[in-house]
Amino acid sequence: MSNPVLYLDDLRIGQKFISSEHVLDAAQIIEYARQFDPQVFHTDPEKARDTFFQGLAASGWHTASITMKLVVESLPMSAGVIGAGVEELSWPQPTRPDDVLHVESEILEIIPSRSKPGRAIVRIRCETKNQRGEVVQSFVPKLLAFKRP
Amino acid sequence: MSNPVLYLDDLRIGQKFISSEHVLDAAQIIEYARQFDPQVFHTDPEKARDTFFQGLAASGWHTASITMKLVVESLPMSAGVIGAGVEELSWPQPTRPDDVLHVESEILEIIPSRSKPGRAIVRIRCETKNQRGEVVQSFVPKLLAFKRP
Repeated sequence: MSNPVLYLDDLRIGQKFISSEHVLDAAQIIEYARQFDPQVFHTDPEKARDTFFQGLAASGWHTASITMKLVVESLPMSAGVIGAGVEELSWPQPTRPDDVLHVESEILEIIPSRSKPGRAIVRIRCETKNQRGEVVQSFVPKLLAFKRP
Repeated sequence: MSNPVLYLDDLRIGQKFISSEHVLDAAQIIEYARQFDPQVFHTDPEKARDTFFQGLAASGWHTASITMKLVVESLPMSAGVIGAGVEELSWPQPTRPDDVLHVESEILEIIPSRSKPGRAIVRIRCETKNQRGEVVQSFVPKLLAFKRP
C-alpha cells in the first residue's frame, strides 16, 4: 500500500477514490463458488448456459469479496477498513469471466459520533465497474474513521 | 441437497428455514482474508490484539460468503438462489475462530412481478448466529422465485 493512511481529518464529502484493477477469470469464479456458492451457474460453464444467467457468472459474494480487496487498497483508513454495516447492496448485472474490475468510491456523508469524540461513521458509495464502465455492483458501506491522534 | 426444490407456490410469509452448521477456524479466516481482505485483524492473530477487534476476527465478507453457502443449502430455490439485491447488511458483532455458525431465515414479503407472470421477489430476513445464539450477521436478500411449471 503506497497510499498515505487516511484519518477522519483527511476526509470530505464528495471526495473520490479510484482503485486499481482486478482481472477475473473462469478459474477464480469456479474456485470461489465451489467453496461458498456451489450453484451450476457459478461452477459449470456448460450447465450455466441453460440457467437464468445464460452462461458462467461470478457469485455476487465473490464480486463483493473482490470489491473489498480493491477498497482496502484504495481507501487506506488509519485503523483499517472497518464496516459498521452496508446499505443498498445490489448487482445490476452479472460479473463474467475475463471481466476487469475496478472500484470507484465517493464519500456521501460524514456522521460524527455523539458518544465517542474523535470518531465518525463515513457513508461511501462504492461502485464496482467492468472494462466497459458498466456497474456490476453498487453498495454504500458505513466505515469507521478516527481523528489523527 | 436432500431438501425438495422450492417453487414460488411453496413459499408463504412467516415461513422459516434453518441451515446446517459451519465450523470456522483461524486457518479459514486467514486464508479468506489473505485473498480478499488483507488487514492484520483478519490475517495475524498476534497483531490483531492491538486493533479495534482486539483479536483475530473474520472479514465480514467471509461471514457473508459462509452465510451464502448455508443459504444455498437450506433454501433450495427451483432456479437457484439468485439475489436481486440486499437490504440492511450488518455485522452486529465479530465472527471469531472456532465459532460454529448457522443461518435462520424467515420470509418477510412476497412481491409478484408485474411484468413477468409466474415470477416474484421474495424478501427474506437471514440471521447468521454463532454457537451462543448471538447474531453475527443480519441481512435481507431479495430472491427470485418462480412458479411451478
